[in-house]
Amino acid sequence: MTDLSAAAAAASGGFAGSAPLVEVIRGAFVECVHRGAAVVCDASGDVVASWGDAGRVMLPRSSCKMLQALPLVESGAADDAGLCPSRLALSCASHRGAAIHTVPVRAWLAELGLAESDLRCGSQSPDDRDAREGLIRAQEAPDQTHNNCSGKHTGFLTLNRRLGGGSEYIEPDHPVQRAAKEAFYAMTGDDEGLGHVIDGCSAPNFACTLTGLARAMARMADPSAIGGARAAAARRLVDAMRANPALVGGEREPATVLMRALGGEVALKSGAEGVFTAIIPGRGLGVAVKIDDGAGRAAAVAMAAILARLGVASAADPGFAALLTPEQSNRRGVLTGTIRPAAALA
Amino acid sequence: MTDLSAAAAAASGGFAGSAPLVEVIRGAFVECVHRGAAVVCDASGDVVASWGDAGRVMLPRSSCKMLQALPLVESGAADDAGLCPSRLALSCASHRGAAIHTVPVRAWLAELGLAESDLRCGSQSPDDRDAREGLIRAQEAPDQTHNNCSGKHTGFLTLNRRLGGGSEYIEPDHPVQRAAKEAFYAMTGDDEGLGHVIDGCSAPNFACTLTGLARAMARMADPSAIGGARAAAARRLVDAMRANPALVGGEREPATVLMRALGGEVALKSGAEGVFTAIIPGRGLGVAVKIDDGAGRAAAVAMAAILARLGVASAADPGFAALLTPEQSNRRGVLTGTIRPAAALA
Repeated sequence: MTDLSAAAAAASGGFAGSAPLVEVIRGAFVECVHRGAAVVCDASGDVVASWGDAGRVMLPRSSCKMLQALPLVESGAADDAGLCPSRLALSCASHRGAAIHTVPVRAWLAELGLAESDLRCGSQSPDDRDAREGLIRAQEAPDQTHNNCSGKHTGFLTLNRRLGGGSEYIEPDHPVQRAAKEAFYAMTGDDEGLGHVIDGCSAPNFACTLTGLARAMARMADPSAIGGARAAAARRLVDAMRANPALVGGEREPATVLMRALGGEVALKSGAEGVFTAIIPGRGLGVAVKIDDGAGRAAAVAMAAILARLGVASAADPGFAALLTPEQSNRRGVLTGTIRPAAALA
Repeated sequence: MTDLSAAAAAASGGFAGSAPLVEVIRGAFVECVHRGAAVVCDASGDVVASWGDAGRVMLPRSSCKMLQALPLVESGAADDAGLCPSRLALSCASHRGAAIHTVPVRAWLAELGLAESDLRCGSQSPDDRDAREGLIRAQEAPDQTHNNCSGKHTGFLTLNRRLGGGSEYIEPDHPVQRAAKEAFYAMTGDDEGLGHVIDGCSAPNFACTLTGLARAMARMADPSAIGGARAAAARRLVDAMRANPALVGGEREPATVLMRALGGEVALKSGAEGVFTAIIPGRGLGVAVKIDDGAGRAAAVAMAAILARLGVASAADPGFAALLTPEQSNRRGVLTGTIRPAAALA
């Protein structure tokens, strides 16, 4: 992988430009603080608002799956395979390995004439409790369809049928990943030389700036300036995500829960290590959040706070307020504290 | 609970005095940074070394269980009940709910003429995989003996038999908690007015300064200046922890793993939300670490780095090096990065 001495050196300064975004309260005490950075962009690529170092180089992890799925749709591969919106949503998903995710992934693989063994994402115990405990009771091991990325990977395999690449579709120089990389950097507007890492699912994850990630989300929200097959693909993927929040994540997954609370107006996506993205078609805006320490609990609250500041959601709505300042209870159900946006976001 | 406006206000500034302590590396990138503070004290209470804001007010959570257990031993209640070192270790434990923890806790309760229902810690699904999956296969719910604090609570019940308090031993004004509070502030040397919160196990958790927590650990390491029954109790508890690392935590629990790597020379204890303490009898030193964001992965690496700096452990030992810079692999077993001490600790 590319060694980015400058970017790595900057980051190892401890993300000095970061801002306190979220606080964890216990009783009368601020027990924890989560620092980070966040950016809101419009479709022209302009920064509308930012907190902390908006220009930092970062790893988007799963928050950019809808960008990785663009070639699947714009190439015509999705239509060749007759993919319905629910499968497009799965191709953008970090799912919890519930039956609603694994059953359609297995059916999709079978329709492609492929099997679980053609996936290269690795096996993962499902986050979904029923699925996980069902496997334990049946004394069965989880397989690759339970991996939270199995929809994305089945999308990769679907694209690969059109591109005619080999079986190792996760290699960075494979036609599938070259297509994903082109789409990713075209949408973020960032330098293709930023480098990549190996993601949890073994696919390459390309580095970008936090502003670039927000810019890509804004272009997904309003792809009119892009035009052509890519714009149509962006609209289809965003619509598929908004129409299928439970497929993009699952029960109790933060992106799913937030999408439901917002009534389908916003497409949201979480990523490992504290990344969260939002696509707001009605406003033509994109949002990207990165928590320095990688905490998902903080990324979700920071994103909720930004959506409230943008007027997309209201703290007066009890369902949304419960996500903006989630209460924390202990093992006897006693309320012990809350998580809340820090002053900069409140 | 006491409202500490000054302390809370200071903390809500985002722990401005904190230092980058730990970095999470993926490929060529610093993906995450964990900030925090750490203090090393000697038994006279002097600060030997510190990183970040050593004076910050914080919640020690389970890292102070050996302080909460002092009244159990010094009162004579432990001897009245014939507690062996393994039960003293359990009284200081945040265990994983394995059979090695729950079986002796149940036996101990029975010897007291009490039952699981006398505990007030709440039920918790065991962190130990065999125990957790065994309950799922048997379609049994976890009970309060599986709670990671069940040993501490059985210790509270043992002390309560001597003190003659009521059944609600977790109430802050109960004789058991008044005794725990007296010992906690005598050992930390902090102001008893700092206040408390409700812990995950429903017992009060008293606030202290990070320096006070390190000072208390140093006094546990060398209680000669304290003298009397408290000094003897401190020695017995520390020896019990060092002799029984698997009872203090469990397989794969960071304090247990570090204690084993150090060959029993150091007593270590993890606490929720990124707290870690060390008692080093051979050097008369105590260490306290608090990670701002609450990440246990960072607290363990920061503690390992400090122990290496103190010369208690060596990075030349492969077993210890694996804890100092733990490798991170993905779901196909591909090495993706490491966690490492940041420059200030390296």
